[in-house]
Amino acid sequence: MLISEQERDALYKTLFARRDVRRNFRPEPIPEEVLQRILMAAHHAPSVGFMQPWDFVLVEQPETRASIRDGFVEASGMEAEIFEGERQQLYRSLKLEGITDSAMGIVVTCDRKRMGEQGLGRVLNPEMSLYSTVCAIQNLWLAARAENVGVGWVSILDYEVLRRLLGIPDSVDVIAYLCVGYTDGFAASPDLEQRGWQDRLPLSELIHRERW
Amino acid sequence: MLISEQERDALYKTLFARRDVRRNFRPEPIPEEVLQRILMAAHHAPSVGFMQPWDFVLVEQPETRASIRDGFVEASGMEAEIFEGERQQLYRSLKLEGITDSAMGIVVTCDRKRMGEQGLGRVLNPEMSLYSTVCAIQNLWLAARAENVGVGWVSILDYEVLRRLLGIPDSVDVIAYLCVGYTDGFAASPDLEQRGWQDRLPLSELIHRERW
Repeated sequence: MLISEQERDALYKTLFARRDVRRNFRPEPIPEEVLQRILMAAHHAPSVGFMQPWDFVLVEQPETRASIRDGFVEASGMEAEIFEGERQQLYRSLKLEGITDSAMGIVVTCDRKRMGEQGLGRVLNPEMSLYSTVCAIQNLWLAARAENVGVGWVSILDYEVLRRLLGIPDSVDVIAYLCVGYTDGFAASPDLEQRGWQDRLPLSELIHRERW
Repeated sequence: MLISEQERDALYKTLFARRDVRRNFRPEPIPEEVLQRILMAAHHAPSVGFMQPWDFVLVEQPETRASIRDGFVEASGMEAEIFEGERQQLYRSLKLEGITDSAMGIVVTCDRKRMGEQGLGRVLNPEMSLYSTVCAIQNLWLAARAENVGVGWVSILDYEVLRRLLGIPDSVDVIAYLCVGYTDGFAASPDLEQRGWQDRLPLSELIHRERW
Protein backbone atom coordinates (compact mmCIF):
# COMPACT_ATOMS: atom_id res chain seq x y z
CA MET A 1 0.00 0.00 0.00
CA LEU A 2 1.46 3.32 -1.08
CA ILE A 3 1.35 6.43 1.08
CA SER A 4 0.82 9.57 -1.03
CA GLU A 5 2.81 12.78 -0.60
CA GLN A 6 -0.26 14.45 0.82
CA GLU A 7 -0.70 11.67 3.38
CA ARG A 8 3.00 11.81 4.22
CA ASP A 9 2.73 15.54 4.85
CA ALA A 10 -0.25 14.97 7.15
CA LEU A 11 1.86 12.54 9.18
CA TYR A 12 4.71 15.04 9.42
CA LYS A 13 2.32 17.84 10.39
CA THR A 14 0.91 15.72 13.22
CA LEU A 15 4.31 14.50 14.34
CA PHE A 16 5.86 17.99 14.52
CA ALA A 17 2.75 19.45 16.20
CA ARG A 18 2.75 16.81 18.98
CA ARG A 19 3.56 18.22 22.41
CA ASP A 20 4.09 16.93 25.93
CA VAL A 21 0.98 18.64 27.29
CA ARG A 22 0.91 19.63 30.96
CA ARG A 23 -1.27 22.74 30.99
CA ASN A 24 -4.40 24.20 29.38
CA PHE A 25 -6.25 20.90 29.69
CA ARG A 26 -10.03 21.01 29.43
CA PRO A 27 -12.14 18.72 31.63
CA GLU A 28 -14.69 17.37 29.11
CA PRO A 29 -14.50 13.60 28.69
CA ILE A 30 -13.06 11.98 25.58
CA PRO A 31 -15.79 10.23 23.56
CA GLU A 32 -15.51 6.46 23.77
CA GLU A 33 -15.00 6.02 19.99
CA VAL A 34 -12.10 8.50 20.02
CA LEU A 35 -10.55 6.71 22.98
CA GLN A 36 -10.93 3.33 21.26
CA ARG A 37 -9.22 4.62 18.11
CA ILE A 38 -6.30 5.97 20.14
CA LEU A 39 -5.90 2.68 22.03
CA MET A 40 -6.19 0.68 18.78
CA ALA A 41 -3.30 2.76 17.40
CA ALA A 42 -1.24 1.87 20.48
CA HIS A 43 -2.15 -1.79 20.04
CA HIS A 44 -0.71 -1.69 16.50
CA ALA A 45 2.76 -0.73 17.65
CA PRO A 46 5.63 -3.07 16.77
CA SER A 47 6.42 -5.59 19.49
CA VAL A 48 9.28 -8.02 19.81
CA GLY A 49 8.16 -11.49 18.75
CA PHE A 50 4.66 -9.96 18.35
CA MET A 51 4.27 -10.35 22.12
CA GLN A 52 2.05 -7.25 22.60
CA PRO A 53 3.09 -6.90 26.23
CA TRP A 54 1.01 -3.79 26.97
CA ASP A 55 -2.07 -3.16 29.11
CA PHE A 56 -3.95 0.10 29.60
CA VAL A 57 -5.56 1.17 32.87
CA LEU A 58 -7.99 4.05 32.30
CA VAL A 59 -8.34 6.27 35.36
CA GLU A 60 -11.07 8.87 35.65
CA GLN A 61 -12.19 8.90 39.29
CA PRO A 62 -11.21 12.26 40.84
CA GLU A 63 -10.21 10.72 44.20
CA THR A 64 -7.82 8.27 42.57
CA ARG A 65 -6.24 11.00 40.51
CA ALA A 66 -5.93 13.29 43.52
CA SER A 67 -3.95 10.53 45.26
CA ILE A 68 -1.73 10.09 42.21
CA ARG A 69 -1.13 13.83 42.16
CA ASP A 70 -0.06 13.70 45.82
CA GLY A 71 2.61 11.26 44.64
CA PHE A 72 3.76 13.72 42.01
CA VAL A 73 3.97 16.57 44.52
CA GLU A 74 6.17 14.47 46.80
CA ALA A 75 8.40 13.26 43.94
CA SER A 76 8.85 16.68 42.37
CA GLY A 77 9.69 18.25 45.72
CA MET A 78 12.49 15.70 46.02
CA GLU A 79 13.63 16.14 42.44
CA ALA A 80 13.79 19.93 42.75
CA GLU A 81 16.56 19.51 45.34
CA ILE A 82 19.05 18.22 42.76
CA PHE A 83 19.07 21.65 41.12
CA GLU A 84 20.59 24.79 42.63
CA GLY A 85 19.91 28.52 42.72
CA GLU A 86 18.14 29.97 39.69
CA ARG A 87 17.86 26.56 38.06
CA GLN A 88 15.90 25.26 41.07
CA GLN A 89 13.70 28.37 41.01
CA LEU A 90 12.98 27.78 37.33
CA TYR A 91 12.23 24.08 38.02
CA ARG A 92 9.74 24.99 40.73
CA SER A 93 7.98 27.45 38.39
CA LEU A 94 7.39 24.85 35.64
CA LYS A 95 4.04 23.08 35.33
CA LEU A 96 5.08 19.48 34.90
CA GLU A 97 1.81 17.53 35.10
CA GLY A 98 -1.91 17.74 34.43
CA ILE A 99 -3.04 14.76 36.50
CA THR A 100 -6.21 16.27 37.97
CA ASP A 101 -6.98 18.90 35.31
CA SER A 102 -6.91 16.55 32.30
CA ALA A 103 -9.93 14.43 31.35
CA MET A 104 -8.33 11.15 32.39
CA GLY A 105 -5.16 9.23 33.04
CA ILE A 106 -3.93 6.21 31.11
CA VAL A 107 -1.42 3.96 32.85
CA VAL A 108 0.54 1.84 30.40
CA THR A 109 2.22 -1.33 31.62
CA CYS A 110 4.43 -4.12 30.32
CA ASP A 111 3.95 -7.81 31.07
CA ARG A 112 7.45 -9.13 30.36
CA LYS A 113 6.31 -12.74 30.72
CA ARG A 114 3.23 -12.50 28.50
CA MET A 115 4.58 -14.99 25.94
CA GLY A 116 6.90 -16.85 28.28
CA GLU A 117 9.99 -16.01 30.29
CA GLN A 118 12.05 -15.93 27.11
CA GLY A 119 10.89 -15.30 23.56
CA LEU A 120 11.78 -14.49 19.98
CA GLY A 121 14.01 -11.42 19.75
CA ARG A 122 14.47 -10.91 23.49
CA VAL A 123 16.88 -13.57 24.67
CA LEU A 124 20.00 -11.40 24.33
CA ASN A 125 18.11 -8.14 24.84
CA PRO A 126 15.32 -8.76 27.35
CA GLU A 127 14.62 -5.03 27.63
CA MET A 128 12.97 -5.31 24.17
CA SER A 129 9.61 -6.06 25.82
CA LEU A 130 9.79 -2.73 27.68
CA TYR A 131 10.74 -0.96 24.45
CA SER A 132 7.73 -2.51 22.68
CA THR A 133 5.46 -0.89 25.26
CA VAL A 134 7.19 2.46 24.69
CA CYS A 135 6.53 2.14 20.94
CA ALA A 136 2.85 1.67 21.83
CA ILE A 137 2.96 4.84 23.93
CA GLN A 138 4.41 6.84 21.04
CA ASN A 139 1.71 5.50 18.70
CA LEU A 140 -0.92 6.48 21.27
CA TRP A 141 0.62 9.95 21.59
CA LEU A 142 0.57 10.60 17.83
CA ALA A 143 -2.93 9.17 17.38
CA ALA A 144 -4.16 11.42 20.20
CA ARG A 145 -2.54 14.45 18.52
CA ALA A 146 -4.29 13.51 15.28
CA GLU A 147 -7.56 13.56 17.27
CA ASN A 148 -6.56 16.97 18.72
CA VAL A 149 -6.25 15.36 22.14
CA GLY A 150 -3.30 16.29 24.34
CA VAL A 151 -1.05 13.77 26.10
CA GLY A 152 1.57 14.37 28.79
CA TRP A 153 3.87 11.68 30.23
CA VAL A 154 4.40 12.13 33.98
CA SER A 155 7.65 10.46 35.01
CA ILE A 156 8.11 12.44 38.22
CA LEU A 157 6.31 9.80 40.24
CA ASP A 158 7.14 6.70 42.24
CA TYR A 159 5.27 4.17 40.13
CA GLU A 160 4.75 1.99 43.22
CA VAL A 161 2.08 4.55 44.14
CA LEU A 162 0.22 3.60 40.96
CA ARG A 163 0.69 -0.11 41.59
CA ARG A 164 -0.86 0.18 45.04
CA LEU A 165 -3.72 2.52 44.08
CA LEU A 166 -4.70 0.61 40.93
CA GLY A 167 -4.00 -2.98 42.00
CA ILE A 168 -1.39 -3.60 39.30
CA PRO A 169 0.17 -7.07 39.75
CA ASP A 170 3.78 -7.32 40.91
CA SER A 171 4.64 -9.30 37.79
CA VAL A 172 3.86 -6.33 35.53
CA ASP A 173 6.11 -3.27 35.00
CA VAL A 174 4.55 0.20 35.12
CA ILE A 175 5.97 2.16 32.18
CA ALA A 176 4.00 5.40 32.07
CA TYR A 177 1.31 7.59 33.56
CA LEU A 178 -0.22 9.64 30.75
CA CYS A 179 -2.46 12.68 31.29
CA VAL A 180 -4.96 12.69 28.43
CA GLY A 181 -7.51 15.30 27.44
CA TYR A 182 -8.64 18.04 25.14
CA THR A 183 -6.75 21.30 25.54
CA ASP A 184 -7.14 25.00 24.86
CA GLY A 185 -4.34 24.67 22.31
CA PHE A 186 -1.01 23.05 21.63
CA ALA A 187 2.11 25.14 22.22
CA ALA A 188 4.18 26.06 19.17
CA SER A 189 7.32 24.57 20.75
CA PRO A 190 8.15 22.47 23.83
CA ASP A 191 7.57 24.22 27.16
CA LEU A 192 11.09 23.43 28.35
CA GLU A 193 12.51 25.10 25.23
CA GLN A 194 10.25 28.17 25.61
CA ARG A 195 11.13 28.58 29.27
CA GLY A 196 14.88 28.38 28.63
CA TRP A 197 15.41 25.06 30.39
CA GLN A 198 17.05 23.38 27.39
CA ASP A 199 17.54 24.25 23.69
CA ARG A 200 16.92 21.88 20.80
CA LEU A 201 20.20 20.35 19.64
CA PRO A 202 21.27 20.67 15.98
CA LEU A 203 20.35 17.36 14.30
CA SER A 204 23.55 17.39 12.23
CA GLU A 205 25.64 16.93 15.39
CA LEU A 206 23.78 13.72 16.20
CA ILE A 207 24.41 11.97 12.86
CA HIS A 208 27.52 9.84 12.34
CA ARG A 209 28.52 8.27 9.02
CA GLU A 210 29.80 4.68 8.98
CA ARG A 211 31.43 5.05 12.41
CA TRP A 212 30.78 7.08 15.57
CA MET B 1 -2.96 23.94 15.30
CA LEU B 2 -5.90 21.72 14.36
CA ILE B 3 -5.48 18.38 12.61
CA SER B 4 -8.31 17.78 10.13
CA GLU B 5 -10.19 14.48 9.84
CA GLN B 6 -8.49 13.85 6.51
CA GLU B 7 -5.07 14.38 8.06
CA ARG B 8 -6.01 12.17 11.00
CA ASP B 9 -7.02 9.40 8.63
CA ALA B 10 -3.68 9.71 6.79
CA LEU B 11 -1.89 9.22 10.10
CA TYR B 12 -3.98 6.13 10.92
CA LYS B 13 -3.43 4.72 7.42
CA THR B 14 0.34 5.07 7.82
CA LEU B 15 0.33 3.75 11.36
CA PHE B 16 -1.69 0.61 10.54
CA ALA B 17 0.31 -0.03 7.34
CA ARG B 18 3.67 0.09 9.18
CA ARG B 19 5.47 -3.24 9.30
CA ASP B 20 8.62 -4.69 10.83
CA VAL B 21 10.27 -5.30 7.44
CA ARG B 22 12.76 -8.15 7.12
CA ARG B 23 12.35 -9.30 3.51
CA ASN B 24 11.74 -7.96 0.00
CA PHE B 25 14.20 -5.11 0.55
CA ARG B 26 15.51 -3.40 -2.58
CA PRO B 27 19.13 -2.23 -2.66
CA GLU B 28 18.79 1.30 -4.12
CA PRO B 29 20.02 4.02 -1.78
CA ILE B 30 17.65 6.33 0.06
CA PRO B 31 17.93 9.90 -1.27
CA GLU B 32 19.63 12.19 1.21
CA GLU B 33 16.61 14.52 1.52
CA VAL B 34 14.33 11.58 2.38
CA LEU B 35 16.83 10.33 4.96
CA GLN B 36 17.09 13.79 6.51
CA ARG B 37 13.29 14.06 6.81
CA ILE B 38 13.12 10.67 8.52
CA LEU B 39 15.88 11.60 10.97
CA MET B 40 14.28 14.99 11.63
CA ALA B 41 11.07 13.15 12.58
CA ALA B 42 13.05 11.03 15.03
CA HIS B 43 14.68 14.16 16.44
CA HIS B 44 11.20 15.58 17.21
CA ALA B 45 10.26 12.73 19.52
CA PRO B 46 9.40 13.56 23.11
CA SER B 47 12.33 13.31 25.50
CA VAL B 48 12.45 13.50 29.26
CA GLY B 49 13.60 16.97 30.36
CA PHE B 50 14.04 17.71 26.62
CA MET B 51 17.40 15.88 26.88
CA GLN B 52 17.35 14.49 23.30
CA PRO B 53 19.66 11.62 24.26
CA TRP B 54 19.76 9.99 20.81
CA ASP B 55 22.49 9.63 18.16
CA PHE B 56 22.23 7.97 14.76
CA VAL B 57 25.05 6.00 13.14
CA LEU B 58 24.36 5.46 9.43
CA VAL B 59 25.99 2.29 8.12
CA GLU B 60 26.20 1.59 4.40
CA GLN B 61 29.57 -0.15 3.83
CA PRO B 62 28.93 -3.76 2.77
CA GLU B 63 31.86 -5.16 4.78
CA THR B 64 30.64 -3.57 7.99
CA ARG B 65 27.13 -4.89 7.44
CA ALA B 66 28.42 -8.36 6.59
CA SER B 67 30.19 -8.41 9.97
CA ILE B 68 27.02 -7.25 11.73
CA ARG B 69 25.10 -10.01 9.97
CA ASP B 70 27.63 -12.54 11.24
CA GLY B 71 26.66 -11.36 14.71
CA PHE B 72 22.98 -11.96 13.93
CA VAL B 73 23.67 -15.48 12.63
CA GLU B 74 25.47 -16.36 15.84
CA ALA B 75 22.79 -14.83 18.07
CA SER B 76 19.85 -16.40 16.25
CA GLY B 77 21.50 -19.83 16.29
CA MET B 78 21.68 -19.50 20.06
CA GLU B 79 18.15 -18.14 20.39
CA ALA B 80 16.67 -20.98 18.29
CA GLU B 81 17.76 -23.44 20.99
CA ILE B 82 15.24 -22.11 23.51
CA PHE B 83 12.43 -23.46 21.32
CA GLU B 84 11.65 -27.14 20.81
CA GLY B 85 10.37 -29.38 18.04
CA GLU B 86 8.07 -27.81 15.48
CA ARG B 87 8.36 -24.43 17.15
CA GLN B 88 12.13 -24.49 16.63
CA GLN B 89 11.66 -25.58 13.02
CA LEU B 90 9.29 -22.67 12.47
CA TYR B 91 11.74 -20.27 14.14
CA ARG B 92 14.54 -21.39 11.86
CA SER B 93 12.35 -20.89 8.78
CA LEU B 94 11.53 -17.27 9.61
CA LYS B 95 13.46 -14.42 7.96
CA LEU B 96 14.25 -12.20 10.91
CA GLU B 97 16.62 -9.56 9.47
CA GLY B 98 17.55 -7.69 6.30
CA ILE B 99 20.96 -6.42 7.38
CA THR B 100 22.80 -6.92 4.09
CA ASP B 101 19.87 -6.78 1.66
CA SER B 102 18.44 -3.43 2.84
CA ALA B 103 19.87 -0.13 1.61
CA MET B 104 21.46 0.77 4.93
CA GLY B 105 21.52 0.30 8.67
CA ILE B 106 20.78 2.94 11.27
CA VAL B 107 22.10 2.33 14.77
CA VAL B 108 20.23 4.37 17.39
CA THR B 109 21.89 5.04 20.73
CA CYS B 110 21.14 6.73 24.04
CA ASP B 111 23.55 8.98 25.92
CA ARG B 112 22.12 8.76 29.42
CA LYS B 113 24.45 11.47 30.69
CA ARG B 114 23.84 13.98 27.91
CA MET B 115 22.33 16.61 30.22
CA GLY B 116 24.05 15.45 33.41
CA GLU B 117 23.98 12.34 35.56
CA GLN B 118 20.55 13.32 36.85
CA GLY B 119 17.94 15.50 35.26
CA LEU B 120 14.37 16.70 35.15
CA GLY B 121 11.92 13.79 35.06
CA ARG B 122 14.46 11.02 35.46
CA VAL B 123 15.55 11.05 39.09
CA LEU B 124 13.03 8.43 40.27
CA ASN B 125 12.81 6.75 36.85
CA PRO B 126 16.25 6.88 35.22
CA GLU B 127 15.15 4.52 32.43
CA MET B 128 13.21 7.47 30.98
CA SER B 129 16.24 8.45 28.90
CA LEU B 130 16.20 5.02 27.23
CA TYR B 131 12.46 5.35 26.64
CA SER B 132 12.98 8.75 25.01
CA THR B 133 15.27 7.12 22.46
CA VAL B 134 12.64 4.44 21.79
CA CYS B 135 10.07 7.18 21.11
CA ALA B 136 12.52 8.57 18.54
CA ILE B 137 12.75 5.13 16.92
CA GLN B 138 8.97 4.87 16.63
CA ASN B 139 8.83 8.36 15.07
CA LEU B 140 11.54 7.31 12.61
CA TRP B 141 9.65 4.11 11.79
CA LEU B 142 6.38 5.93 11.04
CA ALA B 143 8.11 8.68 9.04
CA ALA B 144 9.88 6.03 6.98
CA ARG B 145 6.56 4.28 6.31
CA ALA B 146 5.11 7.61 5.19
CA GLU B 147 8.04 7.82 2.73
CA ASN B 148 7.28 4.22 1.63
CA VAL B 149 10.60 3.13 3.15
CA GLY B 150 10.73 -0.10 5.14
CA VAL B 151 12.29 -0.43 8.61
CA GLY B 152 13.07 -3.58 10.58
CA TRP B 153 14.44 -3.63 14.15
CA VAL B 154 17.01 -6.38 14.65
CA SER B 155 17.20 -7.29 18.33
CA ILE B 156 18.71 -10.75 17.82
CA LEU B 157 22.21 -9.38 18.13
CA ASP B 158 24.81 -8.86 20.82
CA TYR B 159 25.01 -5.09 20.64
CA GLU B 160 28.63 -5.22 21.84
CA VAL B 161 29.38 -6.33 18.25
CA LEU B 162 28.03 -2.97 17.05
CA ARG B 163 29.96 -1.07 19.71
CA ARG B 164 33.23 -2.64 18.61
CA LEU B 165 32.64 -2.40 14.84
CA LEU B 166 31.36 1.20 14.91
CA GLY B 167 33.47 2.68 17.70
CA ILE B 168 30.51 3.55 19.91
CA PRO B 169 31.74 4.95 23.26
CA ASP B 170 31.26 2.85 26.39
CA SER B 171 29.28 5.69 27.98
CA VAL B 172 26.52 5.36 25.38
CA ASP B 173 23.82 2.63 25.29
CA VAL B 174 23.04 0.91 21.98
CA ILE B 175 19.25 0.70 21.69
CA ALA B 176 18.58 -0.56 18.16
CA TYR B 177 19.93 -1.73 14.84
CA LEU B 178 17.43 -0.77 12.15
CA CYS B 179 17.47 -2.17 8.61
CA VAL B 180 16.25 0.62 6.34
CA GLY B 181 15.38 0.56 2.65
CA TYR B 182 12.80 0.58 -0.10
CA THR B 183 10.92 -2.68 -0.47
CA ASP B 184 8.90 -4.60 -3.05
CA GLY B 185 5.87 -4.07 -0.86
CA PHE B 186 4.63 -4.04 2.69
CA ALA B 187 2.90 -7.15 4.00
CA ALA B 188 -0.81 -6.85 4.83
CA SER B 189 -0.20 -8.16 8.36
CA PRO B 190 2.83 -8.94 10.56
CA ASP B 191 4.97 -11.86 9.34
CA LEU B 192 4.78 -13.57 12.73
CA GLU B 193 0.98 -13.45 12.58
CA GLN B 194 0.89 -14.76 8.99
CA ARG B 195 3.26 -17.60 9.77
CA GLY B 196 1.30 -18.72 12.81
CA TRP B 197 3.92 -17.76 15.39
CA GLN B 198 1.55 -15.56 17.42
CA ASP B 199 -1.96 -14.14 16.95
CA ARG B 200 -2.98 -10.57 17.61
CA LEU B 201 -4.61 -10.26 21.04
CA PRO B 202 -8.11 -8.76 21.38
CA LEU B 203 -7.64 -5.14 22.46
CA SER B 204 -10.63 -5.31 24.80
CA GLU B 205 -8.77 -7.80 27.02
CA LEU B 206 -5.96 -5.29 27.54
CA ILE B 207 -8.12 -2.42 28.77
CA HIS B 208 -8.91 -2.01 32.48
CA ARG B 209 -11.31 0.61 33.92
CA GLU B 210 -10.31 2.48 37.09
CA ARG B 211 -8.40 -0.54 38.48
CA TRP B 212 -6.51 -3.52 37.03
